[in-house]
Amino acid sequence: MEIYLDHAATTWCYKSVRDIVVRTMMEDYGNPSSMHRKGVEAEAYVKKAREAIARQLKAKDKEIFFTSGGTESNNLALLGAAAANQRRGRRILLSAVEHAAVKEPAKRLKEMGFEVREIPVDSQGVTSLHALEKELTPETILASVMLVNNEVGSVQPMKEIAALVREKAPGALLHADAIQALGKFRIYPGRMDIDLLSASGHKIHGPKGVGFLYIREQAKVQPQILGGGQQGGMRSGTDNVPGIAGLGAAVEEVYQNFQEKTEHMYRIKEQLTEGLENLEGVVIHGMPVRQGAPHIVNASFTGIRSEVLLHALEDKGIYVSAGAACSVHKKVKSGTLAAMGVGPKERESAIRFSFCEETSEEEIRLCLQALGELTPMLRKYARH
Amino acid sequence: MEIYLDHAATTWCYKSVRDIVVRTMMEDYGNPSSMHRKGVEAEAYVKKAREAIARQLKAKDKEIFFTSGGTESNNLALLGAAAANQRRGRRILLSAVEHAAVKEPAKRLKEMGFEVREIPVDSQGVTSLHALEKELTPETILASVMLVNNEVGSVQPMKEIAALVREKAPGALLHADAIQALGKFRIYPGRMDIDLLSASGHKIHGPKGVGFLYIREQAKVQPQILGGGQQGGMRSGTDNVPGIAGLGAAVEEVYQNFQEKTEHMYRIKEQLTEGLENLEGVVIHGMPVRQGAPHIVNASFTGIRSEVLLHALEDKGIYVSAGAACSVHKKVKSGTLAAMGVGPKERESAIRFSFCEETSEEEIRLCLQALGELTPMLRKYARH
Repeated sequence: MEIYLDHAATTWCYKSVRDIVVRTMMEDYGNPSSMHRKGVEAEAYVKKAREAIARQLKAKDKEIFFTSGGTESNNLALLGAAAANQRRGRRILLSAVEHAAVKEPAKRLKEMGFEVREIPVDSQGVTSLHALEKELTPETILASVMLVNNEVGSVQPMKEIAALVREKAPGALLHADAIQALGKFRIYPGRMDIDLLSASGHKIHGPKGVGFLYIREQAKVQPQILGGGQQGGMRSGTDNVPGIAGLGAAVEEVYQNFQEKTEHMYRIKEQLTEGLENLEGVVIHGMPVRQGAPHIVNASFTGIRSEVLLHALEDKGIYVSAGAACSVHKKVKSGTLAAMGVGPKERESAIRFSFCEETSEEEIRLCLQALGELTPMLRKYARH
Repeated sequence: MEIYLDHAATTWCYKSVRDIVVRTMMEDYGNPSSMHRKGVEAEAYVKKAREAIARQLKAKDKEIFFTSGGTESNNLALLGAAAANQRRGRRILLSAVEHAAVKEPAKRLKEMGFEVREIPVDSQGVTSLHALEKELTPETILASVMLVNNEVGSVQPMKEIAALVREKAPGALLHADAIQALGKFRIYPGRMDIDLLSASGHKIHGPKGVGFLYIREQAKVQPQILGGGQQGGMRSGTDNVPGIAGLGAAVEEVYQNFQEKTEHMYRIKEQLTEGLENLEGVVIHGMPVRQGAPHIVNASFTGIRSEVLLHALEDKGIYVSAGAACSVHKKVKSGTLAAMGVGPKERESAIRFSFCEETSEEEIRLCLQALGELTPMLRKYARH
């Protein structure tokens, strides 16, 4: 038995993704920069993927730039926007629950002399609008807020955030890390008044090693990877045709029957949440079920260290995460829970369950059953 | 009929590459940063690929860093080495025949205040050791030389270059863009005394969107993409497991029966070169057949513009390149030929033929036959 409840870390690929990846590796393998037919064929795959993504985002084709993944997208957004706009100001704001792929470039910018300020979040992981308002100054050139938090699934009030940014710092760009949001919510950067938006393939059953950055037409971003001038000079390097085509296919498929899919995930989330509430010594983090993202539940099992429970579940073929998986350290070091005011004991016993549209009620039932069996036993033998 | 003679632009994937890519997309799809078994499984693919590459290069595993491709590798080498070593000096040398993925980051460094100097090449595209010697100063922190030129296949005398660098600029790092060299020559950066070496997957029947940078243990390079701290912090972002595993498989396969493969390509190159010499109005560029790379022939068909001949060949199902394909501009704008002293008329009529170990004598015969038929006709109708 294998029950994979770590979809926020990564996902398997859709069959449609596999098929187009294989076709562009083996048959239509041209270099889009080549003048001949094989190049033109390959270019058509890139164009089609760009159009599919732009359509889903209600954006323009030329606002979609392919990258090697979410991390590169976030780096390009932060470092590229800072470099392109530093003459207007050097102040950058980010929420306290950003991913390392935003926090680390921000740290580099700080070392370079930029003024970087963190906006606190409340106990549900939601950015404080009050604090944001105070920190927004006319010198602010960039604000970066994670649309859906990767650890607890909290959703940021982007419309209110955007309105505040426009009012208090009219020249600033608003960046949204939408890596956990894509495929779980409809995302329209124009309507949401977002200037830069990062996304990744492998969180939505697309390929690893590919993502995109939406850059609003008017926004100024300095390219960070230079060379042959591909993608309008914004991101050089031979287009990763299989990756890009696969990403396009994934974006298309994930938004098919979208309402049913999210409704299914919310029901799964309710089932899991209710089951957890019936267990002893469980504290659930984040927003109320239907307000947060449909695919993430984060809970602390007091008295049991995350790794211990994770490995006990693994022995039963159930895969979950302790904190964010997307860090190499593989340790329980949740910046998000700390920023939410969760104490160290609960942080050290936090487990993230994350699902996809194919996760079944039966899988959740078996997971809850395993937790019901394991947790009293693990507590009994815990050396606390 | 389809005769693909543009392998220097990109290649189809080996079946072994396809198989491992599909397996890691569909079954062993874990995130290497995940603590559970699916993560550990995925990590093993990355480890195995790293070991396979290190073995072929006679390097240490920890000296191999995966990137999103050759362009990122070159950018990391140039921008990363410059940032990490700028306190020791700000002088950077590069050969006049570097790829845009080296030239453009160098241009950015120049804008940032670094002193960037270009070393001329001779009429065969070989870096002038005399000029290099003169330009190497103790303030030089980096020299970047393309191991095999992508347009004409000329091979640089890396041992002599390395010896000069060590003598005249003992603190400098030597970077080699080996993107066209990998799989065509045995490459041992240690023995060749190279500090940084860039490589790409899709030039050797591996996947697009993946490459690596060899960084000698002692060399200092500042990471350019920041986040979760993957790859020892040198390159953050969820490891592109399918791409990396595919790259590892490609490196292994390309070096199997290596001598026969290169010997076959040299024979193909001889056949093509001799055939071209028997045509009228053809000027072949680069080094003598056996001194240059085994897979590239560059020739001008005087009086016929490159695009015209390219499309005429395309109509017969023969795919070649006009200049380097790896530029989005798709125009005949060869920096390499100009640097070699080739005049504008010959530059505008240059065609690059590039093959792989599977290119057959029959394909070359058909290509030569097509050229024999087309070129007199095209010259007749050319409006020169």
